[in-house]
Amino acid sequence: MIYLDNAATTLHKPEAVKRAVWDAMETMGSSGRGAYPAALEASRMIYETRELAAEFFGAPSPVSVAFTSNATEALNIAVSGLIRSKDHVICTQMEHNSVLRPLYRKEKEGAQLSILPCGDQGIPDMSKLPELFRKNTRAVICTHASNVTGDLNDIRTAAELCRENGVLFILDTAQTAGSIPIHMGEMKIDVLCFTGHKGLMGPQGTGGICLGEGIRIPAFKTGGSGVHSFDREQPGQGALVLEAGTLNGHGIAGLHEAFSFLKQTTVEAVREKEQKLCSYFCREAARIPGVRLYGNTETKERAAVAALNIRDYDSAAVCDELAEYYGIAVRGGIHCAPLMHRFLGTEKQGAVRFSFSWYNEMEEAEQAVLALREIAG
Amino acid sequence: MIYLDNAATTLHKPEAVKRAVWDAMETMGSSGRGAYPAALEASRMIYETRELAAEFFGAPSPVSVAFTSNATEALNIAVSGLIRSKDHVICTQMEHNSVLRPLYRKEKEGAQLSILPCGDQGIPDMSKLPELFRKNTRAVICTHASNVTGDLNDIRTAAELCRENGVLFILDTAQTAGSIPIHMGEMKIDVLCFTGHKGLMGPQGTGGICLGEGIRIPAFKTGGSGVHSFDREQPGQGALVLEAGTLNGHGIAGLHEAFSFLKQTTVEAVREKEQKLCSYFCREAARIPGVRLYGNTETKERAAVAALNIRDYDSAAVCDELAEYYGIAVRGGIHCAPLMHRFLGTEKQGAVRFSFSWYNEMEEAEQAVLALREIAG
Repeated sequence: MIYLDNAATTLHKPEAVKRAVWDAMETMGSSGRGAYPAALEASRMIYETRELAAEFFGAPSPVSVAFTSNATEALNIAVSGLIRSKDHVICTQMEHNSVLRPLYRKEKEGAQLSILPCGDQGIPDMSKLPELFRKNTRAVICTHASNVTGDLNDIRTAAELCRENGVLFILDTAQTAGSIPIHMGEMKIDVLCFTGHKGLMGPQGTGGICLGEGIRIPAFKTGGSGVHSFDREQPGQGALVLEAGTLNGHGIAGLHEAFSFLKQTTVEAVREKEQKLCSYFCREAARIPGVRLYGNTETKERAAVAALNIRDYDSAAVCDELAEYYGIAVRGGIHCAPLMHRFLGTEKQGAVRFSFSWYNEMEEAEQAVLALREIAG
Repeated sequence: MIYLDNAATTLHKPEAVKRAVWDAMETMGSSGRGAYPAALEASRMIYETRELAAEFFGAPSPVSVAFTSNATEALNIAVSGLIRSKDHVICTQMEHNSVLRPLYRKEKEGAQLSILPCGDQGIPDMSKLPELFRKNTRAVICTHASNVTGDLNDIRTAAELCRENGVLFILDTAQTAGSIPIHMGEMKIDVLCFTGHKGLMGPQGTGGICLGEGIRIPAFKTGGSGVHSFDREQPGQGALVLEAGTLNGHGIAGLHEAFSFLKQTTVEAVREKEQKLCSYFCREAARIPGVRLYGNTETKERAAVAALNIRDYDSAAVCDELAEYYGIAVRGGIHCAPLMHRFLGTEKQGAVRFSFSWYNEMEEAEQAVLALREIAG
């Protein structure tokens, strides 16, 4: 199988990630819940993963990082903990339901929501944010890259404008963490939400939230903490208040190795490889008569994601054909980003999405182009 | 190492559990997010795990089961979704912070909380529940077994009284799932919360919530669902509304094998073995001069957990000695159950907790007794 659905999950993981999960399932106790070697080792490994994550994302310190089960949980924590019922909050038309649905819920509770629309090229014009700012604007929350088209949001401009106006900037890196360099400090990101199982190439069931300097979020879930058992409220330094109950230690052991792998390989090298594959694919796909490519595929400033349709063919049917006759795994339909599909006019047709990872090779991109050419022919 | 901290997490897992997680990390796509084999296989495996869980716990149907990252998350979902600010809710003195802290939070929001105290034997007298019922009593929520002493709550009486009085019965099975048979239908349990990494012997990062007939809980987290992308609210049949974002498919693959292992081995066989080890340990430990055993250790109707202290020795120091000189892993201090420690009068000393699993052998229990004898000698 040629796997090109890496925007959903990276199927291929570094060997060290898999081995670490296996080893953890053989030797790991419960972190923070004992003083014998297997428990201490669990605590040490989890703390080291916080260190690696903080370094990777440029977060202030290891205790600025809380682990969650995925990016969606991290985004729910950010929205539910930071947006109050009288606040105004801004997102973009690019957003995934993991941002939109928590915001819609806040809207029902009284918060006001503005959505910055996509411009001509399909990319929201962040320089227009000041037109949307109100006295009670609490935060701008947006995705780093569209999970449909792969286009990037101009997060530097957004973060700069937020900082100048005393507005929090919350970033969803589900489509970019591991593939595009991100530094919270340098980029003025107040809250960063990430998932472990996509570009980071870690296990499913991992992810996290990183809090910038001075940011505090109240507990989302409460429960056992392994410390301060007599407190009625959830204890925990920095971001650790956002964790309750036994962590996914087995998964985090894999995430530890995923961060280590990327530290050695470098995000820049991953990016270069993914871009090469995706640029080739976009260039060739665009030449096929009847293929319509979405988004701004001519720039290199994008995630390695390409969405397209063939004339009026149903996108799911194209995916089925790709899977059945060519052994190519891609995703069709609606990609949990309803406003983006409205912008693209693909609410009914959906879109066929190809997404590349470090473990793809040029031959696979070539095969995908050949298959597309046959289906469109 | 002799591992006797199974109430924190079972260190030893069936080979099939580990293999399934490994295989999933090699072959699994994202469930519900594609129609190619790796994604369909993920969806099928996750649905099968719902079937296994529903059968295991006697839940009405596979879609009565939602996966969470641990029991704590499941309990947060139950409390936050079912207890309204004007409701009255009852728990017991046995509870873990995973029940207490979500309830304290509800109390701050206006709910009223009653706590059924432990009786002479350290076990709450459930027949006294009617004295606590009020017109606005919404639910009784309790643990199946104390995570400190291993004593069981009389959940049959509690559930019966709840059903008669139109009160919801919510059960925390963190200490019993996999070790003691439970059937939601027969036992009149409305909501059952479980963790995957303790008695079920599955991976960390897994757990779930099972909803009884007619029980609905609103979404706790919202986000991508893979279906109904244009809905503003979280979609999902039955309990599935409680899931958002990519599930921990790798962990759930392990949980699938954990349920299968227990189905074949039978919970009854697990219980018999664990009881044999724990009964032996309690009987022998009780004979050691200076050892004080907590809880009602004379009955067999209990979880395989034993808590004790040696005279006024600090419990953490005893654990350190057991780990360092005898290679025995147990947990000391306060076990996230503050009210129970108050009842036992061990708020300062904590307690040394020994807990057994299917993978322990009689020789290990004997070694633990010998070590205790030496330390107390």
